Amino acid sequence: MSSLDALNRLAASLAKLPGVGRKSAERMAIALARDPTGVLAALTRALQEVGDTIRSCGRCGYMTPHDQDPCRLCTDSQRDDSVLCVVEDPSAIAALERAGEFRGRYHALMGKISPMNGEGVDGIRVQDLLERVGEGEVTEVILALDTDVESDATASFLAELLNERGVPVTRLAFGLPAGSGIGYSDPVTLARALKGRQQVI
Amino acid sequence: MSSLDALNRLAASLAKLPGVGRKSAERMAIALARDPTGVLAALTRALQEVGDTIRSCGRCGYMTPHDQDPCRLCTDSQRDDSVLCVVEDPSAIAALERAGEFRGRYHALMGKISPMNGEGVDGIRVQDLLERVGEGEVTEVILALDTDVESDATASFLAELLNERGVPVTRLAFGLPAGSGIGYSDPVTLARALKGRQQVI
Repeated sequence: MSSLDALNRLAASLAKLPGVGRKSAERMAIALARDPTGVLAALTRALQEVGDTIRSCGRCGYMTPHDQDPCRLCTDSQRDDSVLCVVEDPSAIAALERAGEFRGRYHALMGKISPMNGEGVDGIRVQDLLERVGEGEVTEVILALDTDVESDATASFLAELLNERGVPVTRLAFGLPAGSGIGYSDPVTLARALKGRQQVI
Repeated sequence: MSSLDALNRLAASLAKLPGVGRKSAERMAIALARDPTGVLAALTRALQEVGDTIRSCGRCGYMTPHDQDPCRLCTDSQRDDSVLCVVEDPSAIAALERAGEFRGRYHALMGKISPMNGEGVDGIRVQDLLERVGEGEVTEVILALDTDVESDATASFLAELLNERGVPVTRLAFGLPAGSGIGYSDPVTLARALKGRQQVI
């Protein structure tokens, strides 16, 4: 049953996408298999096109056209070289750019330290980060990491390395997200929001 | 069709509960009506019991047994009289108590300023708040309000009133909630988290 093997492999690939579970992946795979000249063909073309034309920026790790490396964020002369924002992956750069608040440079680690999943320091772009900081222009490193346990561990590790080199390290504020209700907030978020409370006016 | 009128009124009442939409309320009402001796009778009894035995604390606004006013949070001698945490409603007090970080006193406004819904300053417990602060023991007022537009307006209004009286006012930190991913965060939350970033180590 080689045809079903292919279907299973497609489902397994789809299930690796963020937010796609095993069941959804199976449903997607079946829908794609039922219409080989429609969505499947279009998706195949789109994937090939991305593979052929888009690459990861050698400097920050963000997505960039094949013929533009470093990317436009790394080469934009309007941006501030003295502030370096460290993220886990390119999707975080996209989110921060949508927020429109940050005008410095980025560095994507391409992962985080996660001993449970066998991912150590060697799997992420720490050496590149230290080299960039070593160039001497950076006066602040902002850690814009997620807020789970592994990201916390990664943040502590990086903060120590960077502090040894005398570079001030900040981390995004913990607290209440926009549009949230106190009554529905989880205890950890509330405790952190209380600890980080700010003077008004 | 008086019986259907009653059903509609029940659904309308249920739809006023937080998180219950019109459709869910209708489904709940029908389920209750189909089983008058089961859940409906139990719910009726439970509602009556709450109405008979629970009241709002005259001081902070939290829920308390009928014969215990002020409530246990207001009378607990272990708590700190100098810090007053202002919330919108009793459910926020419950959430903050679950967080376990705060050991001062509470004051529930029982609403917020919301001109669009015809709710002004008179509808919330501002006068009571000023009287409590006027007693002279409070050295910090923490505004633990939600993070929507109306709560922001309420916070600004209260901060001004309290600053005039020389009382320092803080507000819970805005930022990333626990367990959140940067790539999935909304722009407003990210912008606020960047603005409020904190030195690490």
